[in-house]
Amino acid sequence: MQILHSPEEVQKTTREWGGTVALVPTMGALHAGHLSLVEAAQSLADRVVVSIFVNPLQFGPTEDLDKYPRTLEQDASLLGELNVDLLFAPQAAEFYPQGFSTKVSVSGLTASLCGASRPGHFEGVTTVCLKLFQVSNADFAVFGEKDFQQLRVIEQMVDDLNLPVKIIRGAIVRETDGLAMSSRNRYLTAEQRRSAGRVPEAVAAVRRLGADAHVSDVLECARGILGEIEIDYLEVCSEADLRPEAASTALSKIPSPHFFLAVKIGQTRLIDNTPLHGVTP
Amino acid sequence: MQILHSPEEVQKTTREWGGTVALVPTMGALHAGHLSLVEAAQSLADRVVVSIFVNPLQFGPTEDLDKYPRTLEQDASLLGELNVDLLFAPQAAEFYPQGFSTKVSVSGLTASLCGASRPGHFEGVTTVCLKLFQVSNADFAVFGEKDFQQLRVIEQMVDDLNLPVKIIRGAIVRETDGLAMSSRNRYLTAEQRRSAGRVPEAVAAVRRLGADAHVSDVLECARGILGEIEIDYLEVCSEADLRPEAASTALSKIPSPHFFLAVKIGQTRLIDNTPLHGVTP
Repeated sequence: MQILHSPEEVQKTTREWGGTVALVPTMGALHAGHLSLVEAAQSLADRVVVSIFVNPLQFGPTEDLDKYPRTLEQDASLLGELNVDLLFAPQAAEFYPQGFSTKVSVSGLTASLCGASRPGHFEGVTTVCLKLFQVSNADFAVFGEKDFQQLRVIEQMVDDLNLPVKIIRGAIVRETDGLAMSSRNRYLTAEQRRSAGRVPEAVAAVRRLGADAHVSDVLECARGILGEIEIDYLEVCSEADLRPEAASTALSKIPSPHFFLAVKIGQTRLIDNTPLHGVTP
Repeated sequence: MQILHSPEEVQKTTREWGGTVALVPTMGALHAGHLSLVEAAQSLADRVVVSIFVNPLQFGPTEDLDKYPRTLEQDASLLGELNVDLLFAPQAAEFYPQGFSTKVSVSGLTASLCGASRPGHFEGVTTVCLKLFQVSNADFAVFGEKDFQQLRVIEQMVDDLNLPVKIIRGAIVRETDGLAMSSRNRYLTAEQRRSAGRVPEAVAAVRRLGADAHVSDVLECARGILGEIEIDYLEVCSEADLRPEAASTALSKIPSPHFFLAVKIGQTRLIDNTPLHGVTP
């Protein structure tokens, strides 16, 4: 596996390859969720690029940029074992040089959920992803459904800007108790980790609700299971527009209803989501 | 010459070509200035795409979007004579479909000059140019120096976003009296057209000022020649940052000093610019 830090070198390399390229953009601290995206990428394209970059643009001033886990050596070893073709690990000072002043932003889809809780976050995500697509010359880019809003925002950007890359959705990979894999899970103490098990429990419970349920039933069901866990948001949205639906709305009236949750356990923010089954709009 | 309206078809066509592609983005109503850009493009690349699109995103609500000249048939005939490979003339409703919600913006360079006079203008320009670069699969894109700020903004976007396209500057083409060619010149009545001759006169005069001149000398010289013509702005800026320099600053202290002018003659807004020679910073 080639490891490159310079955007120019990666761009040159990937353009010389010929054949198709799939990109898996990550912030590192890789877990089985990431590795499943890499495997999906390998099934799609002739070559696979994985990027590891803890993107400062997508962190707010009070967020965990500094303490975000950085495990490049271990990540490189995992990717090498999977025979990834190229690991791109840029330095922030080179990827955003002095005078950097361009932003890519998506309105609408970013107004709710994590977009509301984390101002500027998605602008950082879309800007870095556009750069990564250009540098990697990607025909495909694979994003996990754990960050479902991010996935929808990227899909919108790709459509709107005619980017010649196909976005592929990778299913959430979960721990044995159901907790969605996340690099941030390692922040949790043993006790917090046990408590975090209620998150996938809530997700599984709302997914079992029938087609006759209303948004209020979903929210109450989730709240009941989460108990004393601090809630950032609980919402039901249509997948198309991600606009939170009113509590009184019947799930059967919502096209592709989807449940979204963000909680805080100690200092650690966790998110999860699920399509709401049993519903045929 | 192929004429296509669908972004998808253009993207498919240009990606199948192989070899290099140069793009000349225009809003149509082509004149000799545009044609010189097409010739530059032909000298650079195996294939040339010209786009003609009066981009609604870059017009303010009180600007001339509706009356902007549209002469597609005549433009196509001119480009066909030059053996352009592909004319891309999208429809706004297809290029910005329902739900379109992504913007590309450059800060800093867009704060002054036309960016200050025309809020949102450059965001419209950068968004459409990014789309055109993706659709045309361009290795080169040629922009005229008449819109010098636009050129600098596009150069910044390309650098910041790692776009794999090289921006080429095309020199201003002028009428016999020196007026910079512009599709908007056709708005002028005969009397206004005579009066407009003072604009290149002012540009030529400030260019002749010596290295010992100050910004104030440049501005006074231009004002003296423009006489009663309504001035939108007159500024001297460094080419690098386009920040207006104070009147008291000596040209010799400004790296690559550049003079910028925007005037209004009747309802018609005209711009021009020149590097200030006689100065070696």
